[in-house]
Amino acid sequence: MALPPDATVADAGEFGLIEAFTALFEQGEHVLIGPGDDAAVLRIRNGHVVVSTDLMVEGRHFRRDWASAEDVGHRAAAQNISDINAMGGSAHSLTIGLAAPADLPAAWALDFARGFAAECASVGASVVGGDLTRADEIMVAVTVIGSCTQAPVVRSDAVAGDVLALTGRQGWAAGGLAVLGRGFRSPRVLVEAYRRPQPPYAAGRIAAEAGATAMIDVSDGLLAEAGHLADASGVAIDVRRSAFDLAEPLVAVGSALGADPLQFILGGGDDHALLATFPDAAAVPDGWLVVGAVSEGSGVTVDGGEYDGPTGWTHF
Amino acid sequence: MALPPDATVADAGEFGLIEAFTALFEQGEHVLIGPGDDAAVLRIRNGHVVVSTDLMVEGRHFRRDWASAEDVGHRAAAQNISDINAMGGSAHSLTIGLAAPADLPAAWALDFARGFAAECASVGASVVGGDLTRADEIMVAVTVIGSCTQAPVVRSDAVAGDVLALTGRQGWAAGGLAVLGRGFRSPRVLVEAYRRPQPPYAAGRIAAEAGATAMIDVSDGLLAEAGHLADASGVAIDVRRSAFDLAEPLVAVGSALGADPLQFILGGGDDHALLATFPDAAAVPDGWLVVGAVSEGSGVTVDGGEYDGPTGWTHF
Repeated sequence: MALPPDATVADAGEFGLIEAFTALFEQGEHVLIGPGDDAAVLRIRNGHVVVSTDLMVEGRHFRRDWASAEDVGHRAAAQNISDINAMGGSAHSLTIGLAAPADLPAAWALDFARGFAAECASVGASVVGGDLTRADEIMVAVTVIGSCTQAPVVRSDAVAGDVLALTGRQGWAAGGLAVLGRGFRSPRVLVEAYRRPQPPYAAGRIAAEAGATAMIDVSDGLLAEAGHLADASGVAIDVRRSAFDLAEPLVAVGSALGADPLQFILGGGDDHALLATFPDAAAVPDGWLVVGAVSEGSGVTVDGGEYDGPTGWTHF
Repeated sequence: MALPPDATVADAGEFGLIEAFTALFEQGEHVLIGPGDDAAVLRIRNGHVVVSTDLMVEGRHFRRDWASAEDVGHRAAAQNISDINAMGGSAHSLTIGLAAPADLPAAWALDFARGFAAECASVGASVVGGDLTRADEIMVAVTVIGSCTQAPVVRSDAVAGDVLALTGRQGWAAGGLAVLGRGFRSPRVLVEAYRRPQPPYAAGRIAAEAGATAMIDVSDGLLAEAGHLADASGVAIDVRRSAFDLAEPLVAVGSALGADPLQFILGGGDDHALLATFPDAAAVPDGWLVVGAVSEGSGVTVDGGEYDGPTGWTHF
């Protein structure tokens, strides 16, 4: 599609945009019919089909002045692929719905689709379908489909005596978001962590094979997610402050903003780290950090007591 | 959830709403893990997995003064299930994303979910997951997953010599929409057809088994969809005016609004009728109406000539 640089999505038109989007979406071998028909058709081998869906709304989940369109595309794909990861599965197919104002630059929509496609391609997944429509604000709706070759790991099977472990960067995206919220652009490594999370995509399946008893991805805050595990499993979880490495950029941001850097780790989401329970420390795979313990009871504590900092994010 | 009748979604809270929604969503036997974990997990027998996704935005795809929340829920599910129907498949699992203003009545959200669940249940499909978030306007994002036990029927395999056939009510929803647009509420049967389409859900699989060469569901207008078939297949399609039954309510609306009632049939969508091509009239299953013919060439004609009425709907 040859469009002037200031063309809007309305100028490009629905079918022009669909054509341009589709050209960006390479189809994997499992895709029998990709975008362009009433539905996509996938060849799936035996095993479980794993499905998740997420919405992102401009101003609430992203800001165009804080992240590029490509960044937003990467994040939209990453947070969905991560949900399949947290079941011990592998994502293979995604659909993308984009609602946008008529005056949205077509270049923004195309860059968004480019980032989305690149994140999917990084795990070998295909963008198999989508929908475009006009709205007053930008909304992105993603559904991801994956497969699970072993039993999926749910939130509800942690038991007293398990250890709690974490893998992936944690707190970096929250640090980056705090920096952006104060009008700064550095430390750049944290801002980049917010803009393009790097979830530990391979770790979910490995944890499942290693015998993880429960697992969740950290999108709403570490303590909030630990709370979801505790509630679903009917157990208590204690998190140890001393378990965490305070990476240098987090320390720097903490002192610049006058905040305890640990609050980014305990309260932050958006990195899409994985939090899981294992029967004992010996079962915890390489690359995971033991950060707490599961016992009888209910609720989440930090070093045995209540935590009074921010613990996460709610949507209404 | 016991809420006062004037409670908003913000009053209900994210987790309260999720709990209330989930209670409405009965899970079929194929659902190993339903809503509430990072992802849903489905047991799927061998065969193709069929996927489609759609967005609906308030003011553009529905109006709260023209349809009840339950109606909007029914329609949101119906238009997605219909896409699986149009491939010759059967829908088994849907996800539902709802973005809504904080002051949306919680009762609206729950009635919407109730209608959505009822439409899914009518075909034996389960609502396996979803997402809720705040936005300035109501946006609904649905993804449907189905299975196809025979080869899926695509848009691109019609050939010259095929007949074009239609099944399901066609034009009734467009008639109802025209009535509502003029501020009327009758004929009630048309208004109801718009509010709660009754797509011919069983017909897609039967058409596939009968040897349909190409198929599409009529959501954007009959001639527009015939155009999609013609373009994708590289053929010409001629539609015959005399083929259509002019149902009495359509005639009544036509004379009340001073419009040709055939324009609702040729230009209308939203009933989610099915349009398909078959090798000959003998192959057309019971309940289908032969409405045209496929020949070499390109484009869509009506009675051999150009049609100058409205042909459909575009999204930007």
